[in-house]
Amino acid sequence: MSSKIKLGILGGGGDSLIGVLHRVASSMYDRYEITGGVFNADLQESINFAEEIGIPTNRIYKDLDSLIAEEAKLPEEERMQVVSILTPNFLHFPMAKQLLENGFNVICEKPMTTTYEEAKILDETLKKSQTIFAVTYTYTGYPMVRQMREMIHKGEIGKVQKVDVQYYQGWINPIIHDSEKRANTWRLDPEKSGISCCVGDIGTHAFDMIEYVTGMEVKEILADLNFLYKDNVMDIDGTVLLRFSEFVKGVLRSSQIATGEENNFTVKIYGEKAGLKWEQENPNYLYLLQDGEPMKVLKPGHSYNSELSLNGTKLPPGHPEGIFDSMGNIYKGVAKAIKKEDYHPAEFPTLKDGKRGMNFIEKAIESHQKGNVWVKIDQ
Amino acid sequence: MSSKIKLGILGGGGDSLIGVLHRVASSMYDRYEITGGVFNADLQESINFAEEIGIPTNRIYKDLDSLIAEEAKLPEEERMQVVSILTPNFLHFPMAKQLLENGFNVICEKPMTTTYEEAKILDETLKKSQTIFAVTYTYTGYPMVRQMREMIHKGEIGKVQKVDVQYYQGWINPIIHDSEKRANTWRLDPEKSGISCCVGDIGTHAFDMIEYVTGMEVKEILADLNFLYKDNVMDIDGTVLLRFSEFVKGVLRSSQIATGEENNFTVKIYGEKAGLKWEQENPNYLYLLQDGEPMKVLKPGHSYNSELSLNGTKLPPGHPEGIFDSMGNIYKGVAKAIKKEDYHPAEFPTLKDGKRGMNFIEKAIESHQKGNVWVKIDQ
Amino acid sequence: MSSKIKLGILGGGGDSLIGVLHRVASSMYDRYEITGGVFNADLQESINFAEEIGIPTNRIYKDLDSLIAEEAKLPEEERMQVVSILTPNFLHFPMAKQLLENGFNVICEKPMTTTYEEAKILDETLKKSQTIFAVTYTYTGYPMVRQMREMIHKGEIGKVQKVDVQYYQGWINPIIHDSEKRANTWRLDPEKSGISCCVGDIGTHAFDMIEYVTGMEVKEILADLNFLYKDNVMDIDGTVLLRFSEFVKGVLRSSQIATGEENNFTVKIYGEKAGLKWEQENPNYLYLLQDGEPMKVLKPGHSYNSELSLNGTKLPPGHPEGIFDSMGNIYKGVAKAIKKEDYHPAEFPTLKDGKRGMNFIEKAIESHQKGNVWVKIDQ
Amino acid sequence: MSSKIKLGILGGGGDSLIGVLHRVASSMYDRYEITGGVFNADLQESINFAEEIGIPTNRIYKDLDSLIAEEAKLPEEERMQVVSILTPNFLHFPMAKQLLENGFNVICEKPMTTTYEEAKILDETLKKSQTIFAVTYTYTGYPMVRQMREMIHKGEIGKVQKVDVQYYQGWINPIIHDSEKRANTWRLDPEKSGISCCVGDIGTHAFDMIEYVTGMEVKEILADLNFLYKDNVMDIDGTVLLRFSEFVKGVLRSSQIATGEENNFTVKIYGEKAGLKWEQENPNYLYLLQDGEPMKVLKPGHSYNSELSLNGTKLPPGHPEGIFDSMGNIYKGVAKAIKKEDYHPAEFPTLKDGKRGMNFIEKAIESHQKGNVWVKIDQ
Repeated sequence: MSSKIKLGILGGGGDSLIGVLHRVASSMYDRYEITGGVFNADLQESINFAEEIGIPTNRIYKDLDSLIAEEAKLPEEERMQVVSILTPNFLHFPMAKQLLENGFNVICEKPMTTTYEEAKILDETLKKSQTIFAVTYTYTGYPMVRQMREMIHKGEIGKVQKVDVQYYQGWINPIIHDSEKRANTWRLDPEKSGISCCVGDIGTHAFDMIEYVTGMEVKEILADLNFLYKDNVMDIDGTVLLRFSEFVKGVLRSSQIATGEENNFTVKIYGEKAGLKWEQENPNYLYLLQDGEPMKVLKPGHSYNSELSLNGTKLPPGHPEGIFDSMGNIYKGVAKAIKKEDYHPAEFPTLKDGKRGMNFIEKAIESHQKGNVWVKIDQ
Repeated sequence: MSSKIKLGILGGGGDSLIGVLHRVASSMYDRYEITGGVFNADLQESINFAEEIGIPTNRIYKDLDSLIAEEAKLPEEERMQVVSILTPNFLHFPMAKQLLENGFNVICEKPMTTTYEEAKILDETLKKSQTIFAVTYTYTGYPMVRQMREMIHKGEIGKVQKVDVQYYQGWINPIIHDSEKRANTWRLDPEKSGISCCVGDIGTHAFDMIEYVTGMEVKEILADLNFLYKDNVMDIDGTVLLRFSEFVKGVLRSSQIATGEENNFTVKIYGEKAGLKWEQENPNYLYLLQDGEPMKVLKPGHSYNSELSLNGTKLPPGHPEGIFDSMGNIYKGVAKAIKKEDYHPAEFPTLKDGKRGMNFIEKAIESHQKGNVWVKIDQ
Repeated sequence: MSSKIKLGILGGGGDSLIGVLHRVASSMYDRYEITGGVFNADLQESINFAEEIGIPTNRIYKDLDSLIAEEAKLPEEERMQVVSILTPNFLHFPMAKQLLENGFNVICEKPMTTTYEEAKILDETLKKSQTIFAVTYTYTGYPMVRQMREMIHKGEIGKVQKVDVQYYQGWINPIIHDSEKRANTWRLDPEKSGISCCVGDIGTHAFDMIEYVTGMEVKEILADLNFLYKDNVMDIDGTVLLRFSEFVKGVLRSSQIATGEENNFTVKIYGEKAGLKWEQENPNYLYLLQDGEPMKVLKPGHSYNSELSLNGTKLPPGHPEGIFDSMGNIYKGVAKAIKKEDYHPAEFPTLKDGKRGMNFIEKAIESHQKGNVWVKIDQ
Repeated sequence: MSSKIKLGILGGGGDSLIGVLHRVASSMYDRYEITGGVFNADLQESINFAEEIGIPTNRIYKDLDSLIAEEAKLPEEERMQVVSILTPNFLHFPMAKQLLENGFNVICEKPMTTTYEEAKILDETLKKSQTIFAVTYTYTGYPMVRQMREMIHKGEIGKVQKVDVQYYQGWINPIIHDSEKRANTWRLDPEKSGISCCVGDIGTHAFDMIEYVTGMEVKEILADLNFLYKDNVMDIDGTVLLRFSEFVKGVLRSSQIATGEENNFTVKIYGEKAGLKWEQENPNYLYLLQDGEPMKVLKPGHSYNSELSLNGTKLPPGHPEGIFDSMGNIYKGVAKAIKKEDYHPAEFPTLKDGKRGMNFIEKAIESHQKGNVWVKIDQ
């Protein structure tokens, strides 16, 4: 029998892009086999999709309840060991909770929940279940992000003194200026998307990235958001001032109206001894800046990289890997955790990261609504 | 039963990098399942490897003969439909020939054969077998290479007037200057690597790329190679002048002693109306240069790209895809061909490309040995 | 007699870098001759310096009073027509005032004054003198900055909706962490440098640039500054939120502790129709981003540029010009104004720009000291 | 009296771009004053131009004979010390010869002569005159080119093993495809431009650069040129294979039909220990590549640079200097030589460089005409 981990998937059917990303990621290190799941709310469509992607149809279920009930009937060694949640955002929480309560390991797309309250409940649930829970902040899987993290942790840039993260997109520009379009986009509908658009969707990636690479926790924030039109209630742009301590500050900038930008997520961390810069659209370069020294450009796969970074590169230097490979690394980390192999805690983001992300979103909105004042992030 | 194509693999076991590349590529579009094969010359190691990567072991064979014999006993719909050849170079030809003679579709790593003579025989064999044969010139699968090809074919740069391709690596530098190391590297041993090192390994990629993107055929070449040491008989660097016609010329530069270069494969095509540039290490950018106009930077996934290019992108603009995705596109093309779906002839390189590549290698060596004279490429 | 404008210089002697910059800039378009001035507080040193740089010594004066008195005795057509002020910051205001009161045209280094109050007085003085007054915000002279300005003014990016300017340096990093060094640097001494270090020195460049290229005025700001050490009273880093109107916002980031950064001044302006980006360290590239279009890269000297931009380029495309050329363009503009030739109002920054800059500095400090609250910029 | 060097200029009047370049360059380090010359064949136009650029008109001469005769009548300390030749190419040789014979120092634009024969005569003349003679291969004045040279000379990249230089422009593309235009362009008329267009104009820059930075001499070349049309007798594109010794080779590529390229002059030198890369359009970056190390990016003005490089930078790191500054450095070097100050022999290119350049042009044409065969460069 295959030693691969049995993976169930919720959502991600049809031409879902996130579905492709997770399926490819799961296959990259020969560690998972997709066993079944619920790809679609309609059972027949789920089955059709399973056939289309060449997955056996006998463990395609009509809903999560059935999945849980039927899987429980199987011998333990045949059951799904982990379930990936790729459904619409509002379903993440109830599904994750139910899965944890029934002893499953979980890989959950972000945003992990729709409210911070839910995130706290999920945290409690996980404490009881003692299973593995990963939130897919995809970008933390890139080898050079991991390298940045390790260099900072090892003190190679000294004490961090300034943080600057940008996540600029322009995709909402063709929508926002047309009153009809902006009224009818689900991303701008709080019923469907929660309390925030820009901060919730991409600001939260930036927030997680900062804490991931620096290992520091943001203590307070002050947010100034933009909505562009009076009839638009969802933030589509914003700057968030960050405080880590009295003398360690930062700024997080996210936008969906940075016209023409694609996915320009840039991370800059400056320490007493050096600075580090990384750009998501050119993910295989990490720039090291030092006083009076030539800038150094680090690339994946070289032996000068940390083990955590090298672990996430499959080919020799010069063979560019991309975002699928990044997500693949997160899946690989989860696989190691499930198999109880040695793994580095930074191999995948956890529920704690997801929970902090939810808190950040709510606090950013709160800061803005109160007139751009400082609010504390829960510690 | 799964509708996935049944894929057998020869070679690529252990920690083979090419093995990882092909396995991931095969999984990217949910079109293949790895059914078995011969991962290693030692059967037990093959079986162990199958277990390690979670493949059923019942169709792991001790050698190609057994594979052919045993697969033939299976009902037709259960048999392997295509076999990927990832073995050492000298085995490509006999294995490919045997597979074709037994009616298999074949995906063959490059160099397709060790001599041009073998390539011609294989060509004859394929004419009889009428199956699908792909050579994995991996780089032609990148969306922006495909876009470059389509733009040239549609006349967007006008008549091509100059071609300049570079493939620079530095990996042999730490080896070549040490007499012991250079005596003991298989890449510098003609017994194991054929008549050429640099031209054969990377020059041939560059040659194929030129013909792929321009749609033109090189007519004559003049090569000047370098060996660096008298006791080294294998070329490790060289410039090849190219003629397409009296007034259309080019230059192909390849090196393994370009110290510090990783995999710097760069393509520049200049036409009457515009120029196009692409770099493998930053594969998601295509530069369009026009007289007196701002340079344009094209990126994957935008609707301004050709269908052939868009077909090779899985995520929206700004989500970088890499070399695994490029190889994945080649596998996808082969899958369409096997399934007799519509496909673009440029979706994967064929035996004709592999054969021209072998001719190029031999002609480059001949040109050099004769004192850097013009020699004709077979048409 | 030479038709060149007679230029006097105050300061800039010895190995002053700003002295070199102004001298070269003044010579670039054959419009000025350096007639004399006060290079140094010590007359003999001034004379020595004049000899060293090959300037006649007969109009080297012991101080500004002498300069004014002696020049007045000359026939009008022989007198200095314009005087450049390159002295320490606290001297800018009194010298500029005295020059204006005596009918001279003035080119003044930034910061124009040490307080906003002084700036307002100078403004009144200029109204009476009716001479030309330029403040050398050097970076506005770059051809691609001018092109950015013209494109925005002509509506090519539509209504501006987001502004993001960064000015990051790391030069104070080797100083700030050493208590002795930071106590003894004049830049961190408010007696010598005024109320601000980072905002005053580089934030003000960024502020001017924003208003220069967008043609919009900042209405309110909220600043969060950093000092890194309790014993340091001067800001060395800070983020400033900007409001142009309810729905047009921006962010200005400046730092001198961005370790390893040299002079990373980057301007990003996003409008309804397009975005524009420019970087000072690669000043010959202007990036135009449009929804769903390939990015366009504009370069100096092409006929697609505006007249204002082309006017600031001396050689054909591909011959990089730099910061000396940028300052040269500002000097050229001033020369045109003095000669009463047609000139574009954006050819050089004026006293109004300098005055707004001073107001910005004081307001940024005020906002920070009041606890990061919104304060209004004078309109 | 001014201690500045008295500079005469031949040519460069009107809106000559080369005139601007030399005038600005001469002023950059306060070392020259333009004393007079012959700006134009027509005396009145020369005088008008002198007035326009603010030069005294009393030493504007009707021709070179008059200049020589009249300057001789002046007291030695008032005479022009150096004369810059910016006239049409065919005048370079007779003017330079006459100036040398009359004891002047000379700064000569490239190509130094129209034939190699002339270059040899000039060399003999200089041996007798014992004055200073500089040829303005402008690009060798860039600080990072100088740094590249010094690093190679000091052995920092080890023994050079591969040289690759590219000089690509596209300016002739809009001309060459129109039979009328190409018949009427002086650059394509051998009567006016000598035997070569592309090799002569830009290939020769590339050739000089190679020898400048490596300190090695090219021994043999093999050239393949392109003319695009039968009725065009002047090369507009070409690749030249280079041999320095049996095992040290290179390639020089130059083109004026690289559509859309501006002035893309790129230098790559690979040695046993490291590689170096530099691009003229981004002249303030020098890339150092080493086996298994992060790439290092060197920039001007840092103390890690050589004295020769630092000597050519006027401002601190991050303040981009350009081509005017590069030419300014060459003028500075000539000034030091004239003043008999210490100077580095690499501060300006000499007659020997110009002579080798002429030999290279003729040999490239010869190699091509003989059917792309190896020809020897004179040593």
